[in-house]
Amino acid sequence: IFFNGWSPRKHQLSVLFSFDYRVFVNRSVTLENIKCYGFDMDYTLAAYKSPDYEDLGFELLRDRLVSIGYPHELLRYNYDPTFPTRGLVFDTMYGNLLKVDSNGNILLCSHGFTFLKRDKIHDYYPNNFIQRGNTDRFYILNTLFNLSETYLYGCLVELFTRCSRYVNCQKGFKYGDLFMSFRSMFQDVRDAMDYVHDTGVLKESTLKNLDKYVIRDPNLPVLLTRIKEVAKVFLATNSDYNYTEVRLMNVSICFSSKNPKKQWRAFFDLVVVDTRKPLFFAEGTVLRQVDTNTGKLRIGTYTGDLQHGTVYSGGSSDIVCDLLDVKGKDILYVGDHIFGDILKSKKRQGWKTFLVVPELAKELQVWTEKSLLHFSCRECPDISAIQTRIKVVTYRMDLSYGQMGSLLRSGSRQTLFASQLMRYADLYSSTCINLLHYPFSYLFRAQSVLMPHESSVDHHPLNFPSPEFSALDHVQKISEAKV
Amino acid sequence: IFFNGWSPRKHQLSVLFSFDYRVFVNRSVTLENIKCYGFDMDYTLAAYKSPDYEDLGFELLRDRLVSIGYPHELLRYNYDPTFPTRGLVFDTMYGNLLKVDSNGNILLCSHGFTFLKRDKIHDYYPNNFIQRGNTDRFYILNTLFNLSETYLYGCLVELFTRCSRYVNCQKGFKYGDLFMSFRSMFQDVRDAMDYVHDTGVLKESTLKNLDKYVIRDPNLPVLLTRIKEVAKVFLATNSDYNYTEVRLMNVSICFSSKNPKKQWRAFFDLVVVDTRKPLFFAEGTVLRQVDTNTGKLRIGTYTGDLQHGTVYSGGSSDIVCDLLDVKGKDILYVGDHIFGDILKSKKRQGWKTFLVVPELAKELQVWTEKSLLHFSCRECPDISAIQTRIKVVTYRMDLSYGQMGSLLRSGSRQTLFASQLMRYADLYSSTCINLLHYPFSYLFRAQSVLMPHESSVDHHPLNFPSPEFSALDHVQKISEAKV
Amino acid sequence: IFFNGWSPRKHQLSVLFSFDYRVFVNRSVTLENIKCYGFDMDYTLAAYKSPDYEDLGFELLRDRLVSIGYPHELLRYNYDPTFPTRGLVFDTMYGNLLKVDSNGNILLCSHGFTFLKRDKIHDYYPNNFIQRGNTDRFYILNTLFNLSETYLYGCLVELFTRCSRYVNCQKGFKYGDLFMSFRSMFQDVRDAMDYVHDTGVLKESTLKNLDKYVIRDPNLPVLLTRIKEVAKVFLATNSDYNYTEVRLMNVSICFSSKNPKKQWRAFFDLVVVDTRKPLFFAEGTVLRQVDTNTGKLRIGTYTGDLQHGTVYSGGSSDIVCDLLDVKGKDILYVGDHIFGDILKSKKRQGWKTFLVVPELAKELQVWTEKSLLHFSCRECPDISAIQTRIKVVTYRMDLSYGQMGSLLRSGSRQTLFASQLMRYADLYSSTCINLLHYPFSYLFRAQSVLMPHESSVDHHPLNFPSPEFSALDHVQKISEAKV
Amino acid sequence: IFFNGWSPRKHQLSVLFSFDYRVFVNRSVTLENIKCYGFDMDYTLAAYKSPDYEDLGFELLRDRLVSIGYPHELLRYNYDPTFPTRGLVFDTMYGNLLKVDSNGNILLCSHGFTFLKRDKIHDYYPNNFIQRGNTDRFYILNTLFNLSETYLYGCLVELFTRCSRYVNCQKGFKYGDLFMSFRSMFQDVRDAMDYVHDTGVLKESTLKNLDKYVIRDPNLPVLLTRIKEVAKVFLATNSDYNYTEVRLMNVSICFSSKNPKKQWRAFFDLVVVDTRKPLFFAEGTVLRQVDTNTGKLRIGTYTGDLQHGTVYSGGSSDIVCDLLDVKGKDILYVGDHIFGDILKSKKRQGWKTFLVVPELAKELQVWTEKSLLHFSCRECPDISAIQTRIKVVTYRMDLSYGQMGSLLRSGSRQTLFASQLMRYADLYSSTCINLLHYPFSYLFRAQSVLMPHESSVDHHPLNFPSPEFSALDHVQKISEAKV
Repeated sequence: IFFNGWSPRKHQLSVLFSFDYRVFVNRSVTLENIKCYGFDMDYTLAAYKSPDYEDLGFELLRDRLVSIGYPHELLRYNYDPTFPTRGLVFDTMYGNLLKVDSNGNILLCSHGFTFLKRDKIHDYYPNNFIQRGNTDRFYILNTLFNLSETYLYGCLVELFTRCSRYVNCQKGFKYGDLFMSFRSMFQDVRDAMDYVHDTGVLKESTLKNLDKYVIRDPNLPVLLTRIKEVAKVFLATNSDYNYTEVRLMNVSICFSSKNPKKQWRAFFDLVVVDTRKPLFFAEGTVLRQVDTNTGKLRIGTYTGDLQHGTVYSGGSSDIVCDLLDVKGKDILYVGDHIFGDILKSKKRQGWKTFLVVPELAKELQVWTEKSLLHFSCRECPDISAIQTRIKVVTYRMDLSYGQMGSLLRSGSRQTLFASQLMRYADLYSSTCINLLHYPFSYLFRAQSVLMPHESSVDHHPLNFPSPEFSALDHVQKISEAKV
Repeated sequence: IFFNGWSPRKHQLSVLFSFDYRVFVNRSVTLENIKCYGFDMDYTLAAYKSPDYEDLGFELLRDRLVSIGYPHELLRYNYDPTFPTRGLVFDTMYGNLLKVDSNGNILLCSHGFTFLKRDKIHDYYPNNFIQRGNTDRFYILNTLFNLSETYLYGCLVELFTRCSRYVNCQKGFKYGDLFMSFRSMFQDVRDAMDYVHDTGVLKESTLKNLDKYVIRDPNLPVLLTRIKEVAKVFLATNSDYNYTEVRLMNVSICFSSKNPKKQWRAFFDLVVVDTRKPLFFAEGTVLRQVDTNTGKLRIGTYTGDLQHGTVYSGGSSDIVCDLLDVKGKDILYVGDHIFGDILKSKKRQGWKTFLVVPELAKELQVWTEKSLLHFSCRECPDISAIQTRIKVVTYRMDLSYGQMGSLLRSGSRQTLFASQLMRYADLYSSTCINLLHYPFSYLFRAQSVLMPHESSVDHHPLNFPSPEFSALDHVQKISEAKV
Repeated sequence: IFFNGWSPRKHQLSVLFSFDYRVFVNRSVTLENIKCYGFDMDYTLAAYKSPDYEDLGFELLRDRLVSIGYPHELLRYNYDPTFPTRGLVFDTMYGNLLKVDSNGNILLCSHGFTFLKRDKIHDYYPNNFIQRGNTDRFYILNTLFNLSETYLYGCLVELFTRCSRYVNCQKGFKYGDLFMSFRSMFQDVRDAMDYVHDTGVLKESTLKNLDKYVIRDPNLPVLLTRIKEVAKVFLATNSDYNYTEVRLMNVSICFSSKNPKKQWRAFFDLVVVDTRKPLFFAEGTVLRQVDTNTGKLRIGTYTGDLQHGTVYSGGSSDIVCDLLDVKGKDILYVGDHIFGDILKSKKRQGWKTFLVVPELAKELQVWTEKSLLHFSCRECPDISAIQTRIKVVTYRMDLSYGQMGSLLRSGSRQTLFASQLMRYADLYSSTCINLLHYPFSYLFRAQSVLMPHESSVDHHPLNFPSPEFSALDHVQKISEAKV
Repeated sequence: IFFNGWSPRKHQLSVLFSFDYRVFVNRSVTLENIKCYGFDMDYTLAAYKSPDYEDLGFELLRDRLVSIGYPHELLRYNYDPTFPTRGLVFDTMYGNLLKVDSNGNILLCSHGFTFLKRDKIHDYYPNNFIQRGNTDRFYILNTLFNLSETYLYGCLVELFTRCSRYVNCQKGFKYGDLFMSFRSMFQDVRDAMDYVHDTGVLKESTLKNLDKYVIRDPNLPVLLTRIKEVAKVFLATNSDYNYTEVRLMNVSICFSSKNPKKQWRAFFDLVVVDTRKPLFFAEGTVLRQVDTNTGKLRIGTYTGDLQHGTVYSGGSSDIVCDLLDVKGKDILYVGDHIFGDILKSKKRQGWKTFLVVPELAKELQVWTEKSLLHFSCRECPDISAIQTRIKVVTYRMDLSYGQMGSLLRSGSRQTLFASQLMRYADLYSSTCINLLHYPFSYLFRAQSVLMPHESSVDHHPLNFPSPEFSALDHVQKISEAKV
């Protein structure tokens, strides 16, 4: 089943096939069975340069807040990419940024830029625990767009805490008769986010300086071309048509030649804009055609055969299956965003998922380098000395990721983000381009999960032939033999 | 923190500390922190001899069915311990016994004693999948008491299928104007189970022949005595007082001396009967005192200090915590039954759990022996030959467990039971006696779970000092240093 | 559409057609359209003599409590029919009996036999209000079987409150180290109810003295015979077959002749026992045939045509429709019990409902007599004098019903029972025999409900021709005219 | 308790106190106990001239649709106030406008402007019934702002049905490869509604021609002044500050003098804009101060004492209670909109409600005039003749209301809107100004609801002294007498 005898394993230690180029597997996926590839746009096909893009987002947010009345001292803050990590939780009651595990246990907690000690955390959160289901109070900052917002919460709390004009209270700050609650601050930042994204301010600034903010990858057309030879390809983005067009025209230096307007659409069998994910994966909205000349919606819905180059607005994941005549389980959907709703869509439709996690490059680098600082536990007679050493090593390792540590773990414990990644993504990698390094006949095989008693037995686990393998295969075999 | 320098690791390969004696770890538990041990009775402290006890249960059920009108041919069937495996699902619509994984995918399916082929299964269950949440239709046979019932479903379907008087239909059998649906057959068996358990028929037969049905372990008093030196101990059983007394008086040969009636209670700080688990772990019922002379309930509730030897009826897990003055997280509860509700209780009360899985002895034996038949994948040039070989090995391995295969897996895939075991039990072992092999200062440490990209890096994972370890420890350290 | 020119209106004031004989209408029902009549047994076809039967129930309950350890003083209490009213709520936390309206506002509250003042009630229940949805705490005593139980709660609380050995606490009584909570008292009474009903103690005592406990009505065979001439008739009872047979053989003096065993079944097209209502109205259970010789269930289900005289066990309302080949909306179901689930069944199946409310005879009598004591508000210059007079009148009226007042109202306010009666019963009457007084072509017409602004206009409302009437009829008419 | 011996009853038949001036009562409200009056703005304090304002709304919507691509033929349609009635339901699947009762039974159904016959309705809706809980499919047009939208649905369906270019299908219209589903049409109209309301197009047009669109009532300042003498007054509107200011400055001719900007605020103790009802009645949003000079929000929240003339944005009904220091049950909230959520708020907070129903003037007029055309049923020997006559009378009566008939009933049956009005509004009237006609000591007394058996007894019901009256009052009285 391997393609031309080519196997990624052979290259495993070579420079070319470094970890950065690998695709990782939570649940086995047989590429040969994938009949259709779907792509998100932002951060998936069209990635942004980090931290420049976050920097831009932060400045626009910050300036917006000052314009609606926040103190001018806020302008002194500039984006610091070493502070925020994706997947943090903002507590709108107490103004803290929290790093938590999948059960809501607190791994790290900052108030402004101050990291709190365990007993201080305990004052805020008895049992060091949050009810993360309380989404009214706890806001999860899961997307890459949330990074600048995350840093801004840090800045605001820091600013008011240090500003002598304001009195620190448990749920906010007081200044004369005015009370600035963390809750209202949160609402202001959310409103500013809407302003920056919905009014087009961010898009305009991005388009003005594409070279600065946007990654152009010559491999992208190569990837899309190769995929199109073996499967159907679609784009499903929450952006509107006009922004989608400009972004994808400029996504690769190779695109700039000749007729980029037509050219980019040629890579897709179907283009759907205004998808309103996660609604798209549930009931969806009415599917409309887009007039690609004006960018306006046509009234009514096109019902003829799928025409190449037609662009749609709205719809749903079900409709995409119908239009492309594929079943959910034959689709690999590549995106950068963990939707709680994708789970639902998995249940109902079985789409395979490929999550793009740009931070993975750095995560892998730190993990690889720092874990070499290991030590042999057995030789060391003094347990407390070992423990101290472990703490030192782990701490250094954590700091290598940034002030908030790794996106995926804190010491021995996995983050909420990591648990969602393992639950909702079948495959993941730092970029979708990494699919290029695997033949389309490739079987991404998940590691066998052994139970504790099984792994205690000292032998290599059986190499089961496929993830679908069970005793049923024998029943089959025997029955066939009998017949 | 180790006790007298004693470590189970040293003995790992010795005869004395074989796998059979081990306790396995899903989530780390520090025994040193456990202030209270709770025990279930049946199959936990008071185990039954297998398969004699299942055999008895089967006969009583079978005879009951014949007495309410089932054909006398049923009497020809005797219990066959090689057929049933715990954790199977009975489909009350189609009469099939199913082995499924945690998502409801079918691993194995029998109709009577005939194992169905994949395409036949597909006819019954499109996508080889059941909605296991549909508990109205699918009945999970999770407890050891269900084993004889499981085999009886096989017998009944086999009997009617082969009996020429009956016409086979999709949902049952027809005989003249009578229709015998699988659903009504199921209800009859459930009613017979209630009859056999509630009327005392099974208990009487057991007590008449204790030597035949009941395991007596000289180590049990040793275990309970040792625990009592370091922690509180309670018993919480769904049985009534009289049966509890007789069973526990006879649970060890050492108990038979002197005054067994008083003696057995002396092992416990608290004895609670009629617990009505899983209700006990939720709202519970009213706590009543039992008159240990008559076995009758007292009216009202005792409210003074806990008196040694007092026996209670009813109550709830919360009340137990109050009476013993311990917190949920300080309790290790040892039982043989996976309650969906224990999960809830874990959330609210954080009881640690130790699951007794008697099958584990055999599971480990087969796993150890058969997996030595392994083969090296890399040298073999012909993939289909490998696959065939794997199938053969796996099949042999499966049959070694019994006709339905392992309790915990089918080939590379884990069963629903295995996934529940991993989710709900912190520790598990084939018997609670195995706790004897560990010092009370022992730290049961769970294996680190590495994410796919982490385990791809070729070095030993860091040995994190404790499962509670996160970057918070550094913040703590640094802050303390500053102060 | 009237039968022989006969109209109940003409007789409205005559002695023969007194209010006691009337059927009252919440929602219009056209008898002509009813194709099938269903009957409950206890208190519907087979009524008990009140208060002798409640008296018997009380004694059995009381004696049971004493036998499990309750003080012998309890034996001094005898049933007092003037105390309890159906539909009261027992608060298992504080031991109070409550009369409430549909929103949970408290209309009356007794602790033992002492009626509490408003401020005392307020101490127990801020806002004079209970969350009646909290069924874990508040137990609604809705059925006629609950009457003796209701009185027993009064006795128990009275006994312990007055007994000098016991200390009164908020949630129960203390006696040395023992605490007798209202909750445990409640559970004991519930267990005693199960004992009295399930072990057959009550049934045996009833059968021993049929003349004393059972009403025999010569009109019942007349009613059933008449109905059977125009529609199908079925019986659906939660009782088992043997009790059903004895009760219905003895339900009328006319039945005692010749062959009563066969005779009673001849009145029904279908007899279903063990119905497990309200489950019967939802998913139901497996339908089984009853061997009318032995009373035992047959295995399997009869599937041939409906045979006269066959008796079934279990099943569901859906199955009844299938067996009798009628639609839900064509059935009038006559029973004495308000099931929350009948509502559901109404939604799904549209069964019409006729509720038997034996208390109605007395309710009507008091309402008629006492309301003649009215007074003219307008002539009276002094408002507070009027109010006092109203209070006096209302109080006398309430006492005429009993200590707890009317089943249906307290002063100007309706009880929870009344609101359920209006919501769930289409028709209601003091006995099902009253159906005899209406021709089978009768249209039971609900009063028009006028909105406040409509009834302010001083003219008689239009007599709309049918409750189904809307403007659609005109559209129809006009359209037909055009065609 | 009457004010100055003044009673509305005396004037009941006088010209001055005609029905138009009355307030109607669903549940009793004692004005004397009301400590705080709250008002909505649009259609409550600031009413629009009908049908001019609906006409304007219709034109803006219609033109918007044409501008996004709808056929120019649409421009031929003008608003026809005789067609739509409030409270209709649009079926987004089949494009029908439905008038339904509270259970979802269909009273009237139009497709475009064609009213469907019963059998045609039956084809669309088996059992003439809709599952109105299916809000995804059925859209309820409950507010006065929905009137133009309602008519537009009629126009669109009519246009496409009659247009020869389009083929009529069950779920929409086909034109070549394009399919115009009723669903997409609905979404376009909803989007156009958002456009017209959110972009300020409608507001601008209204403000340009205040005389044409806005009612100015000299009695409004009189009402607000009187109320302010006896109670607190607040305004709670979903509009923003600037629109609120312009509208309320112009709400009365008396306001135009001197300094209208300050003057209008002087009528209120508290002004809250941007309330986002119904969210306001649930968890609400952050409360912010409005800078009344710029209309912008201040950051932070004012926490000092309530200052007269301060304007707030956001908040919740709970916050309003806190700021004004009143309890929910002491508030009478006057609005034009039935919120499902007000029910919830009633449960939690007990606000009393007064619904403004402008249509009531006409409803009362038709009801009064037409019902004089009554007839005596008893004299008429021929039932079918009576029925025909009733149908004719009812039909004429229905047409007097408009093509869709009355807002509140269709023949003998009440509409969904009527049932919601009775359930959620304690009081209702055609305008809030009608409060002027009652003294502030007035007791609005609800009619007693008699059960069918009670109203069968031929005497006037007791005049119970208050809606809160129950037997408890006697217990109280007697107890006090004893003490």
